Amino acid sequence: MSDKKDKKEKELKEREHKEKDQKNPAEAEPSRRSRKKQNTHKAILHQAKVLFEKEGIGNVTIEQISESADVSRSTFFSHFASVDDLLKEISNEEINDVFDAAEKGDGKLTVSALLKQLNDDTYPYPYLSCEVLMRGILSKGESNFAQVDRFLRKEIVTDKSYANTLEEFSSKELSALILGAFFGLIFQKMINDESFTNPDETSVTIQKFIKYLQNQEELS
Amino acid sequence: MSDKKDKKEKELKEREHKEKDQKNPAEAEPSRRSRKKQNTHKAILHQAKVLFEKEGIGNVTIEQISESADVSRSTFFSHFASVDDLLKEISNEEINDVFDAAEKGDGKLTVSALLKQLNDDTYPYPYLSCEVLMRGILSKGESNFAQVDRFLRKEIVTDKSYANTLEEFSSKELSALILGAFFGLIFQKMINDESFTNPDETSVTIQKFIKYLQNQEELS
Repeated sequence: MSDKKDKKEKELKEREHKEKDQKNPAEAEPSRRSRKKQNTHKAILHQAKVLFEKEGIGNVTIEQISESADVSRSTFFSHFASVDDLLKEISNEEINDVFDAAEKGDGKLTVSALLKQLNDDTYPYPYLSCEVLMRGILSKGESNFAQVDRFLRKEIVTDKSYANTLEEFSSKELSALILGAFFGLIFQKMINDESFTNPDETSVTIQKFIKYLQNQEELS
Repeated sequence: MSDKKDKKEKELKEREHKEKDQKNPAEAEPSRRSRKKQNTHKAILHQAKVLFEKEGIGNVTIEQISESADVSRSTFFSHFASVDDLLKEISNEEINDVFDAAEKGDGKLTVSALLKQLNDDTYPYPYLSCEVLMRGILSKGESNFAQVDRFLRKEIVTDKSYANTLEEFSSKELSALILGAFFGLIFQKMINDESFTNPDETSVTIQKFIKYLQNQEELS
């Protein structure tokens, strides 16, 4: 995952800057400038997400995003080459977030932690998340969800708590069922025009479903 | 469901025509003309589906559809007011098909029959099906899937074979899990760039999953 590498590199650069600041206050200036640039970057991303969620990706222009983020068109282009470039970063941001959460949960809790984060990240921007998902699927290119699918399959095979369920379903099937449960719950809220205010509404069901698949050993 | 009514009315009209044909061969002419009109209608629908599947809905023009169906632009408009009108019929056609199948399966088999038909209808046009689904969800209007969701919830409550599972999950949750399982399996094939040749590949898993949810009484 080159995105993770990019992130690590960014973090390293930031740390260098911090160390410089501490060693010599006179050299603080470039750091302040870079921090300002980072804030602008975040502001553009945030305003884009708000607009995409409200209007739909195809109905938002670079002009609207720039205006909302209070930057010029040329500043926008110094951060992102295009709307597609911006969308790629939004999608990568979410996927890195989800993998970071999965790494923190260990053993039996890895799949739960990944799904919890995916759910929590979807709630503030449900329509945008679905549109990004669909664009990934329909573009027929490598989708970020292919990474999540591969990760889940591997986890399910190594985690002993799925052993009994694996006698009935393959790890590929279980990965599709778990990710599908998540999509099913989100889509159901959307088609019934329910509001996305409390992430627990769907998170509780997903966690219950994961346990249901893990705990078959106790039933048989 | 007014679409079902429309269908019934159409069937009745067709029967009237047939009866007329039998009674008086001289009156067969309007029936032949109406049959020809129906064939044109079907040809436009079919060619539109093929083009939408291949190119994506947004990349297909009325001119392309008319050319593929070998009809003039004005003939197209005598059948459909717009591309949206055509999409509505494609979506209604699938949903009527799915409900017809569910009505044929009875009791414990209703949910299975509905999901089997949904799966079989998706295979020839998987990308189009997903795009229609997403458009329905993102338009925030009444989606055909809201009808399927309501139908499944009602079936799950009346079908005794879910009784034990209903102690753990609500009928609303189970409807989302079953529809989600279907979407999950279709999306998984797409993101892994697998071909949609044999509908059994996903149908077997969905049927196994439905039985898994129904058969908890035997495990406990």
